[in-house]
Parts: sequence; C-alpha cells; structure tokens
Amino acid sequence: MLSPTPLASRSPAEWRAAIRTGQHVGHTSGLADRHVQGNVVVLPAAHADDFLRYCQRNPKPCPVLAVGEPGDPSLPTLGAGIDIRHDVPGYRVWRDGVLADETTDIAALWQDDFVAFVLGCSFSFEQALMDEGVAIRHVERGDNVAMFRTSIDTVAAGPFAGPLVVTMRPFVAADAIRAVQITSRYPAVHGAPVHLGDPALIGIPDITRPDYGDACEVMPDEVPVFWACGVTPQAALVNARLPLAITHAPGKMLITDLLNHQLAAF
Amino acid sequence: MLSPTPLASRSPAEWRAAIRTGQHVGHTSGLADRHVQGNVVVLPAAHADDFLRYCQRNPKPCPVLAVGEPGDPSLPTLGAGIDIRHDVPGYRVWRDGVLADETTDIAALWQDDFVAFVLGCSFSFEQALMDEGVAIRHVERGDNVAMFRTSIDTVAAGPFAGPLVVTMRPFVAADAIRAVQITSRYPAVHGAPVHLGDPALIGIPDITRPDYGDACEVMPDEVPVFWACGVTPQAALVNARLPLAITHAPGKMLITDLLNHQLAAF
Repeated sequence: MLSPTPLASRSPAEWRAAIRTGQHVGHTSGLADRHVQGNVVVLPAAHADDFLRYCQRNPKPCPVLAVGEPGDPSLPTLGAGIDIRHDVPGYRVWRDGVLADETTDIAALWQDDFVAFVLGCSFSFEQALMDEGVAIRHVERGDNVAMFRTSIDTVAAGPFAGPLVVTMRPFVAADAIRAVQITSRYPAVHGAPVHLGDPALIGIPDITRPDYGDACEVMPDEVPVFWACGVTPQAALVNARLPLAITHAPGKMLITDLLNHQLAAF
Repeated sequence: MLSPTPLASRSPAEWRAAIRTGQHVGHTSGLADRHVQGNVVVLPAAHADDFLRYCQRNPKPCPVLAVGEPGDPSLPTLGAGIDIRHDVPGYRVWRDGVLADETTDIAALWQDDFVAFVLGCSFSFEQALMDEGVAIRHVERGDNVAMFRTSIDTVAAGPFAGPLVVTMRPFVAADAIRAVQITSRYPAVHGAPVHLGDPALIGIPDITRPDYGDACEVMPDEVPVFWACGVTPQAALVNARLPLAITHAPGKMLITDLLNHQLAAF
C-alpha cells in the first residue's frame, strides 16, 4: 500500500518506494520537488573504466554524481536504500548499440560485473533559474527542452565518442547574463552554458528544428543560450555498440536524496 | 628627486608622489600594475548627498569605492597619505555643466565643503579578464575602449540624471560566457555585463560608431558584450549643471593601494 502522503510532499525515498513497487511508472519531472534527479547508465565493468574516463574528459555533458561498485546496485551517497535495479520508473536496454527493450525493472538482467553511473541533469539548474526569477519557456509550456547535435566533438575514451549534444533555452540578454551566473554555480549539473548567440557557429543549421525534444521559438529580442546535455553520453554509448548497456528511459530519472541547492559551488 | 625605482615596479605610493610633484602628468593606464585605479568626482557638500544617492541607485555604472569627509582631501581606505587635491595627474573643472578648465592640481580651488568620491573603473576587471586568459581587443591594439550612450535611463537623484553609458568589448561566445563569470566577481568595478547581443535593443544604432573612445570591430563569430561605464556619472554631473564640480581628466585616474584581486566577491 502506498502511504497516504499527498503526492506533492512525498519524499525521494517515498517516490523510490512507489517506483520500486510498480505504483509509479511515469516520468519523474517535477516529482520530489527540489531534489536532484540523475541520468542513469549501467555498464559491464569491462567498459566502465573507459566510460568514467569519457565522463572525466567531458565534464560539462557528463557530470558524474556517483559511480557504484561493480555488482553493487546501491548508491549510498545519493540516498539510503537506493537499488538501481528497481528504483527508476523506466529503463532502456541496449544491445550492440541498438535499443532492444524497455522495462520497468532490471533485476532479471543484473550481472555481477555491472557498474551503475548517475550523471547530473539540467532539471537541477532549471530549478535554480526559476527560484531566482528567470522564467524558462519550455517549462512554462510543459514542453520538453529543445536539443541539438552540434559540430563540436567530445573527447573520446576507448569506444566512447561522438558529438556534443546541447539544450537550448532562449532569453532576453539580461536573463541570459543571469543564467550564466546562476548555472555557473552548478558544475555538477552541466554548469555554465557552452555557447550563446549564432547557432550556426556550433553546427546547428536550423534553430527551429531540434534533433530531440520540442521546438522552442527564439523571439527577436532574445539570445539562444546553449548548455551541454545529458543526451551526449547516451549518444556516445550507442556509438560504442557495447554488447549490453542499460540507461534510464527518457524523462524517467533516478530521484535522489540530494537537494538541488546542495550542488551549488558558491 | 624621483627614486631610481624602475617604472614597472613603482608602488602606488611612489606613483602618487611622482604625480603630486608634477613629475608624472600623463595618463595612468598600466601604471602600478594590479592596483585599483578610480574615477574621481569632487563636489560641494550641498550636492554630495544627492550624488551619493544617485550612485546608490545606479551601482553598476557608479560603484563607489570611497567617499571623503567634507573638506577632507584624504581617502585613508584607498591609501595612506592620499591627498585628492594633488594626487591625480589631470583634473577637469566644470562650471554650470560646462568644461571650464583642465589642471594638474586643485589645491587653489579646494573648498572647506568639498567632498571627494572615488568610483571603480573597468581597468580592474580588464586585468582580471586578461589574467584568466580572455584577450581584450582594444587593449591589445592600444586603443581606448568603445563607449556608447544607450536608451536606458539611469535612476535620477536630485539634479543627477541621464542615460546609461556602456563600454563594448567583442568576444567569441565561449569568452563572452567566461567574461560574464569573471566580471560577476567584481561588483565594485561595474560587475557583470548589462547586455550582450543586438546593440539596437539598448538604443545603439551603429556599433561601428561609438559616442566616446575608439571604434572596435565585432567579427562575424563574435558577440558584442556591454558593461555599465564610469562615463555615466560624468554625464549625469554635466546634466546637473552644478556651479562647480571637479573630475579626473580622461585616462588620468587616482592610483590606489588596493589590489584588483582584493575586490573579488568570490
């Protein structure tokens, strides 16, 4: 039985319990308000070192919040009792770089050599922006953020390589400046923007046609501002064509016990 | 006699002594490396309160580093032994809002009710930018920075009012983002930019024609970035048409004992 706690005030642990028992299988956007949510990658140990080096070399798209021990599904620094085999509402299973399955539990797939990675996600810095009065259009509209592949290559490590993927949020200049200041405080969740202004300079031919997510118009008095995106490591994972890898399903993240504001660097 | 200290290693106090004795009457750009230089305004006490309120209401163009006591030419928080009547290489004397005289010493004009203001200047944040590897074109060229009157009004106080004046420095986007981060640390010397991108949005019709200083081209892969400028309070002072006011002459600043890095907020 679910506790009678109202949804809005459920703790991260309560949400994870609801997810683990199959009572919540939807996306996690807006759940456990103010708590850090993370992108999930699970890999066999044989590839985990390369992946960690890939993240280390590309910290803006791949900010590592936690790495588990081989075979250990717990992530104690992110929350007591987390079991990465059950606590995400949806998983994608990749075989040889191809999406093979989508599931709500990976206990049956778990291997003694699996290593779990949790990477920071822009939900945290979006919360910080909104807390400081900087409105975000796609959030106000209930859309997914617009994402673009760029002409900027990430730094490869082992089989992991590929283009930097970015998110785009349009702002008037004063808010763009505030957004640089605010997101600079959050290096663990993509940090400062990687670009602003002319999209063509980073290989985006048409700002009205995102590669992922929903289109978001840029008004005449606005500047498009681009941040490194957590889709980057997922693309690198697909490129690596590993025999087996598991990620969270889009929008279905791990809810941690960390507060977004705990990630602020200053 | 000047001490035989090489020019490059002269202290702020040594430079002020050379200026006080008339042995240096040129501009101060690059002198006493790493030390804060300030814009100077001297006003009768009857107008000083309004001017201080004007600065308080417009902190980005008018960051006050120090205010003297009425009639007292010392500014002990900026340097031991400073005498504002002698220690600036050039002064401008304004009568009824009109430039009436330019001089190297104001002892003969000094009044018992004069109040000295020293305001932060962009030399300090330019040093910080260059220290962090962000090149500044007008500095590399030996030019004066490009300055523009904008369509943004400052907040008036008493007789002081007028448009915000800005400086413009062009950067590629990555450096523009770094420049926001670095200058945000220096609120006492204009702080973060007030605008970036389209100049027309702040009432600048032609970026190639500055109102003051030297033109600086913006390359196709660059964004113009705009900071509040210390010319703003000088323009407000002219607008106020005070019977008598004194400022430093352009480029001839007060050299203080403060280190630029001491002004960093974090």
